[in-house]
Amino acid sequence: MNPFLQRLRNACDATGSLVSIGLDPDQERMPIDVLDFNKEIIDATRDLVCTYKPNVAFYEALGMPGLEALRKTIEHIRDVAPQVIILGDAKRGDIASTNAAYAKALFDVWGFDAITVNGFAGGESLEPFFKYEEKGVFVWCRSSNPGSQEFQDLRVSANGQQPLFYEWMAERSMDWNTRGNVCLVVGATYPDQLGEVRARCPGMPMLIPAVGAQGGDLESSVKYGIDSEYPNIIINSSRSIIYAKPGRDDFAQAARTAAQNLRDKINRIVKEVGMEWP
Amino acid sequence: MNPFLQRLRNACDATGSLVSIGLDPDQERMPIDVLDFNKEIIDATRDLVCTYKPNVAFYEALGMPGLEALRKTIEHIRDVAPQVIILGDAKRGDIASTNAAYAKALFDVWGFDAITVNGFAGGESLEPFFKYEEKGVFVWCRSSNPGSQEFQDLRVSANGQQPLFYEWMAERSMDWNTRGNVCLVVGATYPDQLGEVRARCPGMPMLIPAVGAQGGDLESSVKYGIDSEYPNIIINSSRSIIYAKPGRDDFAQAARTAAQNLRDKINRIVKEVGMEWP
Repeated sequence: MNPFLQRLRNACDATGSLVSIGLDPDQERMPIDVLDFNKEIIDATRDLVCTYKPNVAFYEALGMPGLEALRKTIEHIRDVAPQVIILGDAKRGDIASTNAAYAKALFDVWGFDAITVNGFAGGESLEPFFKYEEKGVFVWCRSSNPGSQEFQDLRVSANGQQPLFYEWMAERSMDWNTRGNVCLVVGATYPDQLGEVRARCPGMPMLIPAVGAQGGDLESSVKYGIDSEYPNIIINSSRSIIYAKPGRDDFAQAARTAAQNLRDKINRIVKEVGMEWP
Repeated sequence: MNPFLQRLRNACDATGSLVSIGLDPDQERMPIDVLDFNKEIIDATRDLVCTYKPNVAFYEALGMPGLEALRKTIEHIRDVAPQVIILGDAKRGDIASTNAAYAKALFDVWGFDAITVNGFAGGESLEPFFKYEEKGVFVWCRSSNPGSQEFQDLRVSANGQQPLFYEWMAERSMDWNTRGNVCLVVGATYPDQLGEVRARCPGMPMLIPAVGAQGGDLESSVKYGIDSEYPNIIINSSRSIIYAKPGRDDFAQAARTAAQNLRDKINRIVKEVGMEWP
């Protein structure tokens, strides 16, 4: 098994959790500074999640101090939860020579275990990411936003067939996956599409964002996203966990309760659909 | 006229130049540190270009010192060439709430005049960028890399027709352009496609990368990319200008000569195709 996939699986097994917490700072909703807030959230939830997913956009928006907070957040996760996967949500994508620079930034400088990427320029452009064999590369396949259908649901002529664009992105991702470290991002807001992607991509981990604040349905996300031999789904929730309770008091405890509830709900559904896990 | 388009036009008219220089640091090819190198290049070329285009990937790959060099490079351009457009080549794209954070980072924190974006998630997702009415938003339409055709040349069913994916991206960009600040990126390596995009997008500035090291043909790029009433093309060259001469001695003078030659060649072709400019 690819070393990244093994690490991800170990993280899921060790915590009995398919939950990812999105660490997306919003200063208006944070009662204390970003780093301290993140640390409290991490300390309160580290035994309940397989993945932390900082979205780098929200740190970049805070300028250099934001990036410094991200750096120290990553350090803190390494210190207190070394088994947890740190997924840098950055949706990077450019031509190959530029992607080589992004790969260096995200994997070597930031030290993420995995990242999200944009495949618009094709598999050849993504090769510099894939080359980092021990890192996970999550290709953005179907997004969770209201306007996602504008391009992603176009019918395309490919390979003598007429798949939708996102279905073709999924099929191509399978072809690109020569090292076993290619994964996918498929939003929870469109559960049918999750099923279409899963049918095309057995064995491939899928990050499923948009459960929670964006309104994705948990039950159908698990049901349509789950794989046959191992769950291979990571269910991400950001705002509805980290901002579960406003104000300074007990916000971390509230995040813990929200994460625990999400983990347990997911695991109940996993059992209901007939898989013995964890 | 949209204030960004006016600024861009002023920058072209003031310098008689459609040249953009890509400031892409490569420490192995730089005889001195990034900031000093950039400053010398800028000081030697500032009267010859309408745009400087730092590709943020190459700064991110250098960690915090790289980002600090980018910040000071931007400051230096403001000091010595206040009329020149600073285009942050970042190819950002995510769902709208995340794009709002990227827009804040790129426009408010970094202070770019314009940026490049990725439209995979549709026009709705890009609205937070477009809302910055005085900033230019360059939608990545046709990329310059060898693998670009994998998705961008797929035939799609859209609007009762069968355009190629990149053609449809161009058409949609016209629809999104309610404020007049939407522009396009179309690689020079595929001049026919440049013509297809221009036919669909009159009046829209196009950034044309990949002249130079990537081998795009200058004559056909200008010929197919040029608009009817104003050139509306920005021809970018990175490596073949800034690394025109290896070593410490006279590298900036060599960059000046390369930029001047490119400007003059472009302007000759502009005249040859019948436009009186500059």
